Amino acid sequence: MTTALDSPPLDLVLDDIVRNHRPRTEEGSVPAGIPHLSSPPFSRFGIAVATSAGDVFSAGDADVPFSIQSISKVFTLALALSADDPGALWSRVLREPSGTSFNSLVQLEVEHGIPRNPFINSGALVVTDHLMEGFPDAAGHLLRFLSREAGRRIGGQGPFIDEDAAKSELANSSRNLALAHFLKDFGNLRRPAQAVVENYVRQCSIMMTCVETAKAALFLAQDGRGAQGTVVSRSEAKRISSIMLTCGMYDAAGEFAYRVGLPGKSGVGGGILAIVPGEGAICVWSPRLDSKGNSLAGTAALADLADRTGWSVF
Amino acid sequence: MTTALDSPPLDLVLDDIVRNHRPRTEEGSVPAGIPHLSSPPFSRFGIAVATSAGDVFSAGDADVPFSIQSISKVFTLALALSADDPGALWSRVLREPSGTSFNSLVQLEVEHGIPRNPFINSGALVVTDHLMEGFPDAAGHLLRFLSREAGRRIGGQGPFIDEDAAKSELANSSRNLALAHFLKDFGNLRRPAQAVVENYVRQCSIMMTCVETAKAALFLAQDGRGAQGTVVSRSEAKRISSIMLTCGMYDAAGEFAYRVGLPGKSGVGGGILAIVPGEGAICVWSPRLDSKGNSLAGTAALADLADRTGWSVF
Amino acid sequence: MTTALDSPPLDLVLDDIVRNHRPRTEEGSVPAGIPHLSSPPFSRFGIAVATSAGDVFSAGDADVPFSIQSISKVFTLALALSADDPGALWSRVLREPSGTSFNSLVQLEVEHGIPRNPFINSGALVVTDHLMEGFPDAAGHLLRFLSREAGRRIGGQGPFIDEDAAKSELANSSRNLALAHFLKDFGNLRRPAQAVVENYVRQCSIMMTCVETAKAALFLAQDGRGAQGTVVSRSEAKRISSIMLTCGMYDAAGEFAYRVGLPGKSGVGGGILAIVPGEGAICVWSPRLDSKGNSLAGTAALADLADRTGWSVF
Amino acid sequence: MTTALDSPPLDLVLDDIVRNHRPRTEEGSVPAGIPHLSSPPFSRFGIAVATSAGDVFSAGDADVPFSIQSISKVFTLALALSADDPGALWSRVLREPSGTSFNSLVQLEVEHGIPRNPFINSGALVVTDHLMEGFPDAAGHLLRFLSREAGRRIGGQGPFIDEDAAKSELANSSRNLALAHFLKDFGNLRRPAQAVVENYVRQCSIMMTCVETAKAALFLAQDGRGAQGTVVSRSEAKRISSIMLTCGMYDAAGEFAYRVGLPGKSGVGGGILAIVPGEGAICVWSPRLDSKGNSLAGTAALADLADRTGWSVF
Repeated sequence: MTTALDSPPLDLVLDDIVRNHRPRTEEGSVPAGIPHLSSPPFSRFGIAVATSAGDVFSAGDADVPFSIQSISKVFTLALALSADDPGALWSRVLREPSGTSFNSLVQLEVEHGIPRNPFINSGALVVTDHLMEGFPDAAGHLLRFLSREAGRRIGGQGPFIDEDAAKSELANSSRNLALAHFLKDFGNLRRPAQAVVENYVRQCSIMMTCVETAKAALFLAQDGRGAQGTVVSRSEAKRISSIMLTCGMYDAAGEFAYRVGLPGKSGVGGGILAIVPGEGAICVWSPRLDSKGNSLAGTAALADLADRTGWSVF
Repeated sequence: MTTALDSPPLDLVLDDIVRNHRPRTEEGSVPAGIPHLSSPPFSRFGIAVATSAGDVFSAGDADVPFSIQSISKVFTLALALSADDPGALWSRVLREPSGTSFNSLVQLEVEHGIPRNPFINSGALVVTDHLMEGFPDAAGHLLRFLSREAGRRIGGQGPFIDEDAAKSELANSSRNLALAHFLKDFGNLRRPAQAVVENYVRQCSIMMTCVETAKAALFLAQDGRGAQGTVVSRSEAKRISSIMLTCGMYDAAGEFAYRVGLPGKSGVGGGILAIVPGEGAICVWSPRLDSKGNSLAGTAALADLADRTGWSVF
Repeated sequence: MTTALDSPPLDLVLDDIVRNHRPRTEEGSVPAGIPHLSSPPFSRFGIAVATSAGDVFSAGDADVPFSIQSISKVFTLALALSADDPGALWSRVLREPSGTSFNSLVQLEVEHGIPRNPFINSGALVVTDHLMEGFPDAAGHLLRFLSREAGRRIGGQGPFIDEDAAKSELANSSRNLALAHFLKDFGNLRRPAQAVVENYVRQCSIMMTCVETAKAALFLAQDGRGAQGTVVSRSEAKRISSIMLTCGMYDAAGEFAYRVGLPGKSGVGGGILAIVPGEGAICVWSPRLDSKGNSLAGTAALADLADRTGWSVF
Repeated sequence: MTTALDSPPLDLVLDDIVRNHRPRTEEGSVPAGIPHLSSPPFSRFGIAVATSAGDVFSAGDADVPFSIQSISKVFTLALALSADDPGALWSRVLREPSGTSFNSLVQLEVEHGIPRNPFINSGALVVTDHLMEGFPDAAGHLLRFLSREAGRRIGGQGPFIDEDAAKSELANSSRNLALAHFLKDFGNLRRPAQAVVENYVRQCSIMMTCVETAKAALFLAQDGRGAQGTVVSRSEAKRISSIMLTCGMYDAAGEFAYRVGLPGKSGVGGGILAIVPGEGAICVWSPRLDSKGNSLAGTAALADLADRTGWSVF
């Protein structure tokens, strides 16, 4: 995989992408019932690329913290795999796409409590529960990992948990509590349902910037090697990327694979993380969502960036 | 994407792969109730690679014709896209993974007759129906395309339809007829159900060798350009590959993406087609299947080949 | 079960019910896409009661033939049970409510081709197929039975098949053909799918009057004994009534059991058959339907009649 | 509905039924994972009939308390209806059969949190939640009602809650907690999930004898009038009976309607309550269950009793 010849320097490309994709009018939606996710202005738009060569390029609101939400699932999965024999986790969660969200519940029943993959909510709860075996304060453990990998800019705040947001989301976690109790009923949850959901919600409430997110995820483009050493094995890094490609974008994984052609993971906070194997990690953020729950401007920007750079796994 | 440095020549690698992966004992299963698919000896094993440089490497039973079955769906999709405005087809079938086969039926109901993707049976029936608009003899049209792209070896027979097998499968096509009538009920089938299923079954009954299959699919590794000119646009070639990666291996797409890391499409005849974007097309064949319906030895061989060559999209 | 003391004679009650329930304004709906079912004027309303004492009371349009549609399922079931060892049929179809129509398809899959009960379409197809073992012309056999039991009024036409309607419905039978092929795939259909659906559609296209329908069904109120001798055993008569009570009114069986309190079976032609065990059979007809597919005025009239007479199984 | 002529007195019939149906060998199963339900010897068998004439007949272990489990749902429903405008409850729960238990979960999703009927677990949780509006200690309220209606025999203990059993079941209530949180997510639960499940479990843990259960349920055979006055309106009494007939025996409602022909409600403690409209209430108890979760000997005994007495709604 190589960058197209004669392409302009990446920083100019990113500036141009911000110019073209920063929303000028209010389009798209925000998640219902989560006040703190609807507060960022619709015109927010940031993008950052951390490369294997050690460079970080960024443009727009790339240093504004946003709620990473489900992007956290990628990192929690990596930590759960690194904390334990990976096989132990993979006996509790599958690695296959789940179809529609409607079906994910049916499938949990049909497949006797083994979630289809680590990125649907039931799967993420199992992963969190698994990580809690070694690290009961899973959210704190995740935060320390992200802070270490993201580094700290002078004057920067670094990743943090928005505790008010976490409390507010926890009060609206009936569906996740239901899933956790179902998993418990099937014998696939070890810790108390309430404790697992709390950790899960606090992980989702982590605030990070595009720059920090791209840096923290760089290990996935580098065979598992992060800033501070090996995070996961080469083999598990490859597996995480393949799960991102097949299951990372809710019910639009196929469409994203086609339009962008990179392993990606989105969050309802408007962030999207994408991996260019061997090259680097990209994070884009813009808060308004399309009908599938993925950042509207973020998806368009990544498609544009992939076209301009030739970055694609296909 | 580059071949690993200092790797041995590809023909030696393929010979070695045949040595290591040709089944020595009878393991795996054959499809129930399809006599002609259970007739090839379990020890059959062939592999071929057609490269963008114009070379064809092969080993084992790479010149023995086998029933391509669902691998035909890749080619029918390409022809349906090339025969018409691609958008017209994509309004009739989605591009997303379908979860378990159990759910594919439910999803057809939930999504009002729009199949989840072109590789599940309901989707393939819609694609065949679409191709029949321009080419009522869709199976014959497909056969001519494959023959042209595969070329003809001196003394070789070239692709052909096993008409006896087709007749026998047609007599056992109750489920496909059911799906076709459902699609008709939802208004998503234009031709008579019986005619569409007949064409579908005859496409699946095409007999080809590994060498022919790899050559015929080379356009997917070459931005849509085949031996005789453009088959599909660069954009649609990329899309077909992304659908192969997310939906090509029945309920083991995620596992295949991880173990092999290449877009693939398998058939219950024991064949698997894999694409190395920019590099070439691979076809492996061994008739015994794993529990998900994919060639047991074929999957292992592709994983081995990907490891040795470094071919992977991740 | 006794008629309330001091209640007025039944003929006066029926006259009053016609006065109160014959629709004066156009309300309710007609089945989409079945032209001949939407042709009767909305103001049509007939009611008839055939009693064990041998009397027949009727009022309104009780001598106007209407399309019995799914009411035919009751009679076909009785004939299939009388033609064969009942156990043979009950191994092919269950006797339990099916939940929503959405689930009936899923349940067919989950329960491996054994329909939940004889009154959902898949179950009725199995019953028809079963009857065809002894009577390949199942619809003709049913018609002869109905004519015999209903008797013939002087100058009356008697039950007949509306062949034009049958042809038109057959041309719109994709969903029933789909169900038949699914049943075939599961090994639960012996005759060709097309032939079974044809017989099924012709049974549904039988035209009868309220008077004829009530008389033909009287055996169900008389321990299985009809006008010309035993139709089914006492035990099977009881079973048919119990299936009517739990499964006879589409997704409103519970509501009908409460409002009317009698075993009933409705058809989308606007007819409803109800059984008063030990007392008699009632048929009401009015063509406009409620949201569940049951006659709007017919259901209200039966509730009223049950209130006035004290007829109820509860 | 009348008792067959020349039939022997009811007390002799019940004695005979105990002789014929009391299990002599261990057959059937006990609920997995609920220790206190598997403790009664398999040979336990009791039966009681409370009549509208004011008599109580009983035989066998009719004075041994057993865990009423889901039979409690009938009483809780009646109390919830009597505590409030019935329409308020019926807007929160439907009155239709649910198909298989597998589907009940799917249907909860499809029907947006409105359970199919008050006797599936999700429905019973909604009913409990509804009753808690007026009576936060719903289980205590239910116990007082049962004690009052059942009367107190000299030396008898009367209904009581097995608090140890309740605690043990509460510790295994993951599925009910999951359902409660789902209902909450859909906005159809007002009280905290934990509190509702606690009340529900304590209601199920009520211990009563056959004699007490029959007496407490007599109001359902008497147009809603109990020992101490009106419990529910005539109309609601009829409705409860109709829901029992269509939904009272788990996935064997149709079979029970045919074999017994009476509205019934069973519990996994081995009890079955049946109503003979206008005549009386029957309770039978024997702890071993059939594959659908209904008392094996109890069902057979009720079928026998219905045959001998002619009691049947059909």
